[in-house]
Amino acid sequence: MNPKTIEALFNQYKEGAIDIKDAMMKMKELPYKNLDYANLDNHRSLRTGFPEVVYAEGKSLEQLRGIISYQIKEGDTSILATRVTETQFEYLKDLSSELKYDPLSRTITLKRDDTEDIKNRYIAVVTGGTSDIPVAEEAAVTAEIFGSRVERIYDVGVAGIHRLFSKIDLIRRARVIVVVAGMEGALPSVVGGLVESPVIAVPTSIGYGASFNGLSALLTMLNSCAAGISVVNIDNGFGAGYQACMINRIQ
Amino acid sequence: MNPKTIEALFNQYKEGAIDIKDAMMKMKELPYKNLDYANLDNHRSLRTGFPEVVYAEGKSLEQLRGIISYQIKEGDTSILATRVTETQFEYLKDLSSELKYDPLSRTITLKRDDTEDIKNRYIAVVTGGTSDIPVAEEAAVTAEIFGSRVERIYDVGVAGIHRLFSKIDLIRRARVIVVVAGMEGALPSVVGGLVESPVIAVPTSIGYGASFNGLSALLTMLNSCAAGISVVNIDNGFGAGYQACMINRIQ
Amino acid sequence: MNPKTIEALFNQYKEGAIDIKDAMMKMKELPYKNLDYANLDNHRSLRTGFPEVVYAEGKSLEQLRGIISYQIKEGDTSILATRVTETQFEYLKDLSSELKYDPLSRTITLKRDDTEDIKNRYIAVVTGGTSDIPVAEEAAVTAEIFGSRVERIYDVGVAGIHRLFSKIDLIRRARVIVVVAGMEGALPSVVGGLVESPVIAVPTSIGYGASFNGLSALLTMLNSCAAGISVVNIDNGFGAGYQACMINRIQ
Amino acid sequence: MNPKTIEALFNQYKEGAIDIKDAMMKMKELPYKNLDYANLDNHRSLRTGFPEVVYAEGKSLEQLRGIISYQIKEGDTSILATRVTETQFEYLKDLSSELKYDPLSRTITLKRDDTEDIKNRYIAVVTGGTSDIPVAEEAAVTAEIFGSRVERIYDVGVAGIHRLFSKIDLIRRARVIVVVAGMEGALPSVVGGLVESPVIAVPTSIGYGASFNGLSALLTMLNSCAAGISVVNIDNGFGAGYQACMINRIQ
Amino acid sequence: MNPKTIEALFNQYKEGAIDIKDAMMKMKELPYKNLDYANLDNHRSLRTGFPEVVYAEGKSLEQLRGIISYQIKEGDTSILATRVTETQFEYLKDLSSELKYDPLSRTITLKRDDTEDIKNRYIAVVTGGTSDIPVAEEAAVTAEIFGSRVERIYDVGVAGIHRLFSKIDLIRRARVIVVVAGMEGALPSVVGGLVESPVIAVPTSIGYGASFNGLSALLTMLNSCAAGISVVNIDNGFGAGYQACMINRIQ
Amino acid sequence: MNPKTIEALFNQYKEGAIDIKDAMMKMKELPYKNLDYANLDNHRSLRTGFPEVVYAEGKSLEQLRGIISYQIKEGDTSILATRVTETQFEYLKDLSSELKYDPLSRTITLKRDDTEDIKNRYIAVVTGGTSDIPVAEEAAVTAEIFGSRVERIYDVGVAGIHRLFSKIDLIRRARVIVVVAGMEGALPSVVGGLVESPVIAVPTSIGYGASFNGLSALLTMLNSCAAGISVVNIDNGFGAGYQACMINRIQ
Amino acid sequence: MNPKTIEALFNQYKEGAIDIKDAMMKMKELPYKNLDYANLDNHRSLRTGFPEVVYAEGKSLEQLRGIISYQIKEGDTSILATRVTETQFEYLKDLSSELKYDPLSRTITLKRDDTEDIKNRYIAVVTGGTSDIPVAEEAAVTAEIFGSRVERIYDVGVAGIHRLFSKIDLIRRARVIVVVAGMEGALPSVVGGLVESPVIAVPTSIGYGASFNGLSALLTMLNSCAAGISVVNIDNGFGAGYQACMINRIQ
Amino acid sequence: MNPKTIEALFNQYKEGAIDIKDAMMKMKELPYKNLDYANLDNHRSLRTGFPEVVYAEGKSLEQLRGIISYQIKEGDTSILATRVTETQFEYLKDLSSELKYDPLSRTITLKRDDTEDIKNRYIAVVTGGTSDIPVAEEAAVTAEIFGSRVERIYDVGVAGIHRLFSKIDLIRRARVIVVVAGMEGALPSVVGGLVESPVIAVPTSIGYGASFNGLSALLTMLNSCAAGISVVNIDNGFGAGYQACMINRIQ
Repeated sequence: MNPKTIEALFNQYKEGAIDIKDAMMKMKELPYKNLDYANLDNHRSLRTGFPEVVYAEGKSLEQLRGIISYQIKEGDTSILATRVTETQFEYLKDLSSELKYDPLSRTITLKRDDTEDIKNRYIAVVTGGTSDIPVAEEAAVTAEIFGSRVERIYDVGVAGIHRLFSKIDLIRRARVIVVVAGMEGALPSVVGGLVESPVIAVPTSIGYGASFNGLSALLTMLNSCAAGISVVNIDNGFGAGYQACMINRIQ
Repeated sequence: MNPKTIEALFNQYKEGAIDIKDAMMKMKELPYKNLDYANLDNHRSLRTGFPEVVYAEGKSLEQLRGIISYQIKEGDTSILATRVTETQFEYLKDLSSELKYDPLSRTITLKRDDTEDIKNRYIAVVTGGTSDIPVAEEAAVTAEIFGSRVERIYDVGVAGIHRLFSKIDLIRRARVIVVVAGMEGALPSVVGGLVESPVIAVPTSIGYGASFNGLSALLTMLNSCAAGISVVNIDNGFGAGYQACMINRIQ
Repeated sequence: MNPKTIEALFNQYKEGAIDIKDAMMKMKELPYKNLDYANLDNHRSLRTGFPEVVYAEGKSLEQLRGIISYQIKEGDTSILATRVTETQFEYLKDLSSELKYDPLSRTITLKRDDTEDIKNRYIAVVTGGTSDIPVAEEAAVTAEIFGSRVERIYDVGVAGIHRLFSKIDLIRRARVIVVVAGMEGALPSVVGGLVESPVIAVPTSIGYGASFNGLSALLTMLNSCAAGISVVNIDNGFGAGYQACMINRIQ
Repeated sequence: MNPKTIEALFNQYKEGAIDIKDAMMKMKELPYKNLDYANLDNHRSLRTGFPEVVYAEGKSLEQLRGIISYQIKEGDTSILATRVTETQFEYLKDLSSELKYDPLSRTITLKRDDTEDIKNRYIAVVTGGTSDIPVAEEAAVTAEIFGSRVERIYDVGVAGIHRLFSKIDLIRRARVIVVVAGMEGALPSVVGGLVESPVIAVPTSIGYGASFNGLSALLTMLNSCAAGISVVNIDNGFGAGYQACMINRIQ
Repeated sequence: MNPKTIEALFNQYKEGAIDIKDAMMKMKELPYKNLDYANLDNHRSLRTGFPEVVYAEGKSLEQLRGIISYQIKEGDTSILATRVTETQFEYLKDLSSELKYDPLSRTITLKRDDTEDIKNRYIAVVTGGTSDIPVAEEAAVTAEIFGSRVERIYDVGVAGIHRLFSKIDLIRRARVIVVVAGMEGALPSVVGGLVESPVIAVPTSIGYGASFNGLSALLTMLNSCAAGISVVNIDNGFGAGYQACMINRIQ
Repeated sequence: MNPKTIEALFNQYKEGAIDIKDAMMKMKELPYKNLDYANLDNHRSLRTGFPEVVYAEGKSLEQLRGIISYQIKEGDTSILATRVTETQFEYLKDLSSELKYDPLSRTITLKRDDTEDIKNRYIAVVTGGTSDIPVAEEAAVTAEIFGSRVERIYDVGVAGIHRLFSKIDLIRRARVIVVVAGMEGALPSVVGGLVESPVIAVPTSIGYGASFNGLSALLTMLNSCAAGISVVNIDNGFGAGYQACMINRIQ
Repeated sequence: MNPKTIEALFNQYKEGAIDIKDAMMKMKELPYKNLDYANLDNHRSLRTGFPEVVYAEGKSLEQLRGIISYQIKEGDTSILATRVTETQFEYLKDLSSELKYDPLSRTITLKRDDTEDIKNRYIAVVTGGTSDIPVAEEAAVTAEIFGSRVERIYDVGVAGIHRLFSKIDLIRRARVIVVVAGMEGALPSVVGGLVESPVIAVPTSIGYGASFNGLSALLTMLNSCAAGISVVNIDNGFGAGYQACMINRIQ
Repeated sequence: MNPKTIEALFNQYKEGAIDIKDAMMKMKELPYKNLDYANLDNHRSLRTGFPEVVYAEGKSLEQLRGIISYQIKEGDTSILATRVTETQFEYLKDLSSELKYDPLSRTITLKRDDTEDIKNRYIAVVTGGTSDIPVAEEAAVTAEIFGSRVERIYDVGVAGIHRLFSKIDLIRRARVIVVVAGMEGALPSVVGGLVESPVIAVPTSIGYGASFNGLSALLTMLNSCAAGISVVNIDNGFGAGYQACMINRIQ
């Protein structure tokens, strides 16, 4: 239940299209919808400005279908599910022809919102290597579903730093920068020293041996000697894209 | 050497107050000033919009004095040194009567900037407990020296959550929120679920036993189930205040 | 061999139904039954008030069948096996039509006890998310097999804290509360600050990256700033349900 | 502000001893008292049945004095501060002759409560070694200040297990058992297998080398093969005594 | 090439059965046999009293076959390979009808030695649980192949400690005791406090959550407060059985 | 694009074989070739003396094919891809009959370079065990593709140290020594104490239990009491072979 | 109370020197002596063949004095206290002129036993470096107080392995070998491959950086590829000396 | 005893200046000099080309004095002791006026060698920050005492990367590069991508919080995506300088 639905409800009541009992009945689900296995946070959109996002990992096919179909039925304008497998999508795709699955970022999206996207400013999503792209795409898709423009700058890691410098202007003009890197995770420090926008660093689990599934990159980013960098969980492209979008929406 | 100094130099040359040789001599130090033990990044202010900040820990008295006195001489308008002990300040305080030492946040500041601060929006700095205040103050002082207004909301941790709710409006109206917490570090998750501004979480080393000097709080914050949260290093109030200020300055 | 069986034995002897040699023969197995690969602790029920519970993980099909069939033969009134796979259950189910398998909690139960359950007080089992439900069910099933009433309150995590508050009365009236949470594991701290009953916190392995398979949630719970919280091993729903039942049985 | 104070207030108003304005003024501080650096949770006693406990570590002398003197002034009937150094107590002791300092458990207590203690049941506090006693005393003092009777059974570790067996009856009759152990931390597992009361295990930081300041004992206790054991943070005698008291108070 | 083969060689030469050239040719391989991918340590038996043991994990079928067939050809009297899969054994079993595979301990053995085993003293191999038996069997088989007698005492863990006491005499009379335990690994501490023989403790990877694949049990054993205990690697039944055999062979 | 290709381009222009526009067009790709998902670092060969090496793990079949086919088309003289699976090679092998796949080291190589290899000096690649050979071969193949001669000395670990001593002369005469070892990783320390050439130590993930996938060997090597040893990541045969080749090429 | 004291008691009774009441009174303390803060395990000597050893670290001066004076009064023939500071000894030395303090091993010893030491066999105590000597001396003193002969072979670490080989015969003839090493801890592996006696490895906390206070050496020893090695806790010279003595006493 | 001393000995004998008995007596100490607490490795210089270096940490004043005075007496031409405190030097300085103490690198050096240093090539020692200089100086002093020329490039970390680029030519022309960095340790990756010489990376313990005393920088360097980098222990300037010198000496 998004802010527009609630506004509409008030107007319907004012215009006499519904009586108070029906209005209240619909309002009953405002705080959350209890699906037994899940309490969908309908109030979230009002409270935080963003609708609830579905984290598909660890949910059964039935649970996932129940949640998404409720969201579609409610007329949610920006549906996003992350960490979705192809198998999960197969089980869901008949729910609506508008549902789109992107295998690279492993997301399902459905966008009905008719509001204008923010066009005059953008988020730069930068990766160190080719293998970091899926996480970067999770960030990019998340930012886009909530109305941000994204510029992608991929495979510009520190081992061949001239590749980064050739793109530095595009990165510098972004309002906020998401930097995704695995292995030693040094890219955010270098980018952070070159720009005046906030950098959100995303460590990835790319690497082997002493990368310890992304721990090494995570520690690198937390200890960055460049100021203006904050960090999200390993492989958490969603979290970075979400916060970047929050910053990008600031008027 | 801050942007205004450079602009002044251009104007002095245009007006004939200095000749090209003198202008170039002054420009020579633009990229950095070599003090042997330190290369002061004069270009930083142009490149990132923020002057260089001095991290005092691990620097000798002589090194610290050399760096600060150079900054004062250059006419830097916002000098900030962090992690400064009282002993270090004693050794520096004759350099300028404008230098201020704050024992709580352990910072030295000197502010000459005559530009108007950003007043119509603010950063909320929130702590879980009383012992987290020094780190929070490092964040607050950092944000203030670079021109942000800060609202402090201290000791509102999750064990008595009504204290948080009584302040939630003040927190919600902030443009960006810094949440500082030690022990289990749960506060950012609760705040993050209640607001639509980005949250920068700062774990502190407050705790004992399995807090492992802040590691527990750090992991909690990285794994937050609330979206819109990013994290800085343990006790890194400076980093949080700096990035919060970056976001607060966005037009 | 449960307390009632022993009592019956004494009475049979007193009434002359069996002679002393037969009685002693039956008593021989009281301390434990040696199955070669396992020494079943028959004395446990007398000593601790609870019969032995079978941990199925890592046991071969033959071993499991041997143990369960011995328990059935002995007339145990509350049989519980945890971490049972469907394959394991298939191999066992012909032993008794009373054996029930629950795929969600992965438990086998058999309850013959005719004693009245404790009805006027209950255990609240609370989860942060949907994915924590299997662990919560292991706790709930364990508490129920030993005679406790359980109230389930699922998916009320801290990211949408109003969901918790809408259920807080039900939680507060419980005699003991089991709180199950993965990711950052902050829920027990919030609950602990709102109630006067003891809270048993169960970290789950739900999460990714720096959750390190539940380590993050475990540390959070151990460092809780709310008093009255103790913690069991990651995913150890059984242990929490068992101790909660112990507390609930206190007269 | 404890429940009795509030009750008295209602009665004073009913009897006309105070007018509504004064009553409301006094009620204003009910949720919490703001001391700038601390928000004292006055509501806690009503909400959780226990008054707020002061954790002295990391608090300045001034902060500590401010908090304790407020509690004394409010007439709190059970004041408890933990992790108090002798220096801190010196700075506080003139506040009231009723304040008692115990150097072994490092606690300050003040008990004015005239309610009868719970006498017919008790908590057993057990240690593995001599060096674990300070943590055990923190647990014992905590339980006693809130009205429980405590039996102390010290230095009965597993390396000479007959010492434990000679005390096992005293331990078994306890309503709840706190077991404190460092080094390998095996004692809770042995005790847990012998009793039918819940066991709260407290790992201590006693040990060296691979004890990693209590981490080894903590892991041992979390992995206990005996059921009915839950665990608190390393050296957290307070937490164990508090929860034990909660369980002991159950009617 | 075992000591007896060398002795025979000397005698053959002395008796003129072979000439010096042939003798030297045979001696050439004494220090080690180079199989390209492996340098078999033929000298080992002379140097350490034990022949080389084959660790099968990570070796290809061809490598394993090459090594074992060389050992058979050389007339080695005690062949032992550990961590052997059934697939590996299938590929080897035609080499000799004397090769025996034990699926529980995952060992291949071949024993031709006609020397009398040590009968008047024995090694006790003790386990905490049923799931620890495979590791215990690796220890037992290793000790037996090198001539020791082994007594097995399984599933006598600390959660039901009377099971241990009922077997304590058998354990006490052993010359050396191998104690195998997973989860919290407390058994060696209890055994160590009851006996006067050396205890070799073997942590196993049995457990879940904070057992961290045996790390918890390993730390417990290293920190044992009972003296006389030393520890081998997680799941290293072979190492424990080997050292136990060394001690048992002492005259 | 290797140095020779660029030199040829200059000569073609000088000789009038191409005009300036075509020359510049070809030079456009010098810094890097953008394949969308990868920015191939063509400048690398000029800058570091070594062409770019392809790390196949985590790259899709399409990405890998795109990169290798570009390198072949550009006439790169030394193509090396590491961590290549057989499946990946199957998808690539039709690109050129010159591509060779080595299943042991999991590398693809293509060598067209007609320059003479460095023959009068060599790199020694030494392993502790048989299972370390795949990592050692990755090092050897890497060194060979870039023109070094390699001597292989395998399975000479410290448990039978005479095997090492029998090869010590061959090792001592090497210009640089790569020592590959898993489990306790002690071999580099012993070798380092016996030679005057630099030793590059490679820990492998061979082992079990407390080897923690190579962490144990890594720590051993970092703490070596022998001087002259540096270390690369776990299983990073490529990195060791690469740096060894750098040192071997020094004139 | 050592075995001889008990034997004497029996004889005194038989000879009528004491009556049964007095005999029983003396026997009352046999299982343990309760000193409130410590339960001295008098039965230990009968049960394990070794008297109780006092671990001084973390004990107060009063506690230590109470324990040692009780042992002296009881006529214990082999008193050993470990980890004793000079300050602690100052507080104790007036108890008996026979008490000896050794600052290197930080032990107090008192030996009255008139039994012949085991002379025809010995324990070798070997160290990698000079800094490991204090831990080695703790092992040696422990073995000697309980009647073993010790040969010391110090500073023969693997970085100059010829030093080890020059002493190898002395080491080989030992019945059991204690190998003490810090940093990378490789020495036990090399020794273990050269001898046929059991090796007890002691990691020390000597080192810096990634030695992590002995963790690196501990892991090395646990993962040793040489068979016949077991390990004790970091810096646990006592534990190694104790178990070595157990093995050395085997008839 | 350095190679020249031995050569002189041979010549003295040939010329009849000493007889064979005296010559042999002097040769007796060649393998090592036994000082009881230390076996000085005299043979080291012959075997590895470098004399033994003294690691002062953890050695007593007497031990240190014994070792250094032996080296001076033997006429060692390049004496180096590392990790020397001022107190230790005070106790040593009367041994020879040639001993020099450098408080920054905490080294003692004595250089008598009259051989020409290697002048036409040099080692670059680079640091990320000012606080890394002591470790860098340990590397530089080590390389210099053994005859290498060193160029120092300090405080050129990645947060202001233009400082590095302004020095890149000096760095590129070095034969081998030592890169010293704390905090996130990203500098070696950036340098490694820009040069064709081998890079030896030294993590330092500079940093706080999640730097975990240098662990973060260590992991970063081990996971570097730039090839040609190997790593030494945290703060191990000596090890890096030593290996760099080995490489620099290659003819």
